[in-house]
Amino acid sequence: MFVTFEGCEGVGKSTQLKLLKEYLIATSQPALFIREPGSTPISEQIREVILDPKNKEMTPETEALLYAASRAQLVREVILPAIMRGELVICDRFIDSSIAYQGYARGLGVDEVKKINELALCSLEPDLTVFIDLSPREAFRNGHLEDRLEQESDEFFEKVYAGYIAQSKASNGRFVHIKPDFDKNVTSNMIINAMRARGIIK
Amino acid sequence: MFVTFEGCEGVGKSTQLKLLKEYLIATSQPALFIREPGSTPISEQIREVILDPKNKEMTPETEALLYAASRAQLVREVILPAIMRGELVICDRFIDSSIAYQGYARGLGVDEVKKINELALCSLEPDLTVFIDLSPREAFRNGHLEDRLEQESDEFFEKVYAGYIAQSKASNGRFVHIKPDFDKNVTSNMIINAMRARGIIK
Repeated sequence: MFVTFEGCEGVGKSTQLKLLKEYLIATSQPALFIREPGSTPISEQIREVILDPKNKEMTPETEALLYAASRAQLVREVILPAIMRGELVICDRFIDSSIAYQGYARGLGVDEVKKINELALCSLEPDLTVFIDLSPREAFRNGHLEDRLEQESDEFFEKVYAGYIAQSKASNGRFVHIKPDFDKNVTSNMIINAMRARGIIK
Repeated sequence: MFVTFEGCEGVGKSTQLKLLKEYLIATSQPALFIREPGSTPISEQIREVILDPKNKEMTPETEALLYAASRAQLVREVILPAIMRGELVICDRFIDSSIAYQGYARGLGVDEVKKINELALCSLEPDLTVFIDLSPREAFRNGHLEDRLEQESDEFFEKVYAGYIAQSKASNGRFVHIKPDFDKNVTSNMIINAMRARGIIK
């Protein structure tokens, strides 16, 4: 099975992935946790180019193609082999981030982003997408804007959020919306219950 | 005007670009010489990832997407602005390299490579492509196989050459075939005459 986590910056995605990992370890359920862009030596090199705050001249087209390149490598080198071995793969961001960030917020268009990702995806689609559903206005922005993407404007992140909502509507029930609670453990239980309800974990 | 130079490894492309540059300087005709992948700070970072001999696990899809990403940046940051200013731009490798190397030799298919490059090219097409037409069997291989692409097999380069020939046939006269002479200056004169005949240089 292949599960992706999506959401805007500062919604607690990393914290939730950490809590899910702890639950799976505590209940002896092995899973492979990976992140995008990255998680292969080549994809991590591409990640450095994408997120380098010095690369302010990067065009939206370059950015979209670099994400797709990193994804093409990750899908073939890690995700598909793991799925073939019957493993549970959990990925921090995937194709829906490209659609929300480059397709909607950068204005490249959903069809363009899907077109270049066809080659990257090798027909792979997540079985479930856990969407931490918090708008940029509500998000826990912590003031540490370190990489090139985190430095974008509020207006940009509003478009990202709207992109996610549109993508969720178009995805035939693949998205599960998690409205986070102030207590991170309550939120984690919501995620675990959603995955258990779908038979992905016990 | 926008002119590209294409050909297999070891056909003397770099030498010919150097001789053309010297001719244009000697005759006071300014031109912007660039290379692919590279020629912008971001594209040069992408070049390092593509050509790093350590990146042996790179999939053909990742490679094709990285070339397209490097190209998207170069087209928007350098080539289109220079053409708008009325400058002559001469590029060492361009879209035809992607079609010959990734489309034909890596087996991704011409249509797939064209599809991901649509976003990169922004409708730009070379006015003239100088193809140094020497098959791998005839090429001046110098034994210094330094980067990841140069380390490919003879069979791979035969496919690259066949790809160039097919691409030339499909290109409606955009390609000029230069069969190099043993004397590099004779070859240089052939290239200069071909460009003069088309009114690109004096």
